[in-house]
Amino acid sequence: MLLFFFLASTVLAAKAQADFNNPLINNLIYLLRPRYGSGGGGNGVSCLSWRFGVETNNIIDWSTIPEKCELYVGNYMLGEQYRKDSEVVIKEAYLYATSLNLSKDGKDVWIFDIDETSLSNLPYYARHGFGVEPFNLTSFTEWILTEDAPALPETLKLYKSLISLGFKIVFLSGRYEKTRSATERNLIYVGYKAWEKVLLRKDSDKSASSLEYKSAQRKQLVKDGYSIVGNIGDQWSDLLGTDPGNRTFKLPDPMYYIS
Amino acid sequence: MLLFFFLASTVLAAKAQADFNNPLINNLIYLLRPRYGSGGGGNGVSCLSWRFGVETNNIIDWSTIPEKCELYVGNYMLGEQYRKDSEVVIKEAYLYATSLNLSKDGKDVWIFDIDETSLSNLPYYARHGFGVEPFNLTSFTEWILTEDAPALPETLKLYKSLISLGFKIVFLSGRYEKTRSATERNLIYVGYKAWEKVLLRKDSDKSASSLEYKSAQRKQLVKDGYSIVGNIGDQWSDLLGTDPGNRTFKLPDPMYYIS
Repeated sequence: MLLFFFLASTVLAAKAQADFNNPLINNLIYLLRPRYGSGGGGNGVSCLSWRFGVETNNIIDWSTIPEKCELYVGNYMLGEQYRKDSEVVIKEAYLYATSLNLSKDGKDVWIFDIDETSLSNLPYYARHGFGVEPFNLTSFTEWILTEDAPALPETLKLYKSLISLGFKIVFLSGRYEKTRSATERNLIYVGYKAWEKVLLRKDSDKSASSLEYKSAQRKQLVKDGYSIVGNIGDQWSDLLGTDPGNRTFKLPDPMYYIS
Repeated sequence: MLLFFFLASTVLAAKAQADFNNPLINNLIYLLRPRYGSGGGGNGVSCLSWRFGVETNNIIDWSTIPEKCELYVGNYMLGEQYRKDSEVVIKEAYLYATSLNLSKDGKDVWIFDIDETSLSNLPYYARHGFGVEPFNLTSFTEWILTEDAPALPETLKLYKSLISLGFKIVFLSGRYEKTRSATERNLIYVGYKAWEKVLLRKDSDKSASSLEYKSAQRKQLVKDGYSIVGNIGDQWSDLLGTDPGNRTFKLPDPMYYIS
């Protein structure tokens, strides 16, 4: 495990290496592969089943992944299955988008969550046990401020298609206002170059759950005359609640849970 | 494939053999195993990703599983992963149930879907390509009338726990009224011996989607003073819509989709 952390830190710390096609990341995958699918420890819940439970919103309100599932989750996230699962979601979203007739008022919006949806924090989570360590807002904010998060390639593809089709994009994130400059620069840097709005959390939203906060933001969008035709996120709290959108899309994320 | 169908029919047709611990079913699993996880064909979408897309409600309105995923789905359903995935869901439901304070009025109900939730139609689907063949109401109704469906062991366990804890059980199913006797006998036969109601579809409900039909039934329950504390099903249409219940639980089912 220590060796793994050392490798992960060494490999992933440098900015230039924070992308999905890096040969060193592939080497990391190789190191993880021998235990793929075994679920790690072997006692109790299978890590495959745990992931099923999480992705289907059966297992809720958890703070960290099971310790024995670190290698399984790490391998899933760095390996091809995470990408393939994301591709399937994006394919459905694209098919749905092309089936729509855009309204003439320019008010058809598609909501994009940011973390693990538009941007990937995998370089950060690879250094923090893929969700085994409790979430630390301070160190995560430091990571945000590096502006080094790569795009989730599949989501970026969808974003570009939606822009071409004429939809407006609203980024709706639980990130705080104080990270606005870093977040917007990071989005632009990786290819999300235009948007209708980037909605971030104010300090006054602090006590609201993500579900409450995002529901309120969407309600305001609808009040302002927008029609939410689609909504994509990695957390069920992005997609449930009021005014979720005409259709919602759930990307994979077995690393953390936001209520 | 023909050999497989032959074996499946021979193995699964007999009533006594329609259970999960049958050595002949285990033999079937063995025959399927060599292609486990490969996704069958190899072109296009991975069957693992397809299952992710289906279980997370990203892929909707599909009528049959991809032909190349028949062996994958068959192996999943007959193998240990389906059972393990079900166990995880039931474990969460049980934890939630034990956290509740039962009201004194005896009106706390838990809704159970029937097919692929309380009862398993695996013996039927194993003879029909695990969802590769289009759904056929006539032959499925014939299967219902045999009253041979085994219980999903994990769900039966939850049912018994909930009864012990004092909850009332309402079975809410898309099965038609004309199958009521067979359905109730089948439920009793496998261990579901008591209930508050068994709600089945009337011919007049025929044009409603399952989501609309089940929402209306739940609305009526609430109107009648019941409190829906939990709701378990294998389809998202069991769990979305109005009055879904205070918490919902999604069992695995990669074989068919009901809107």
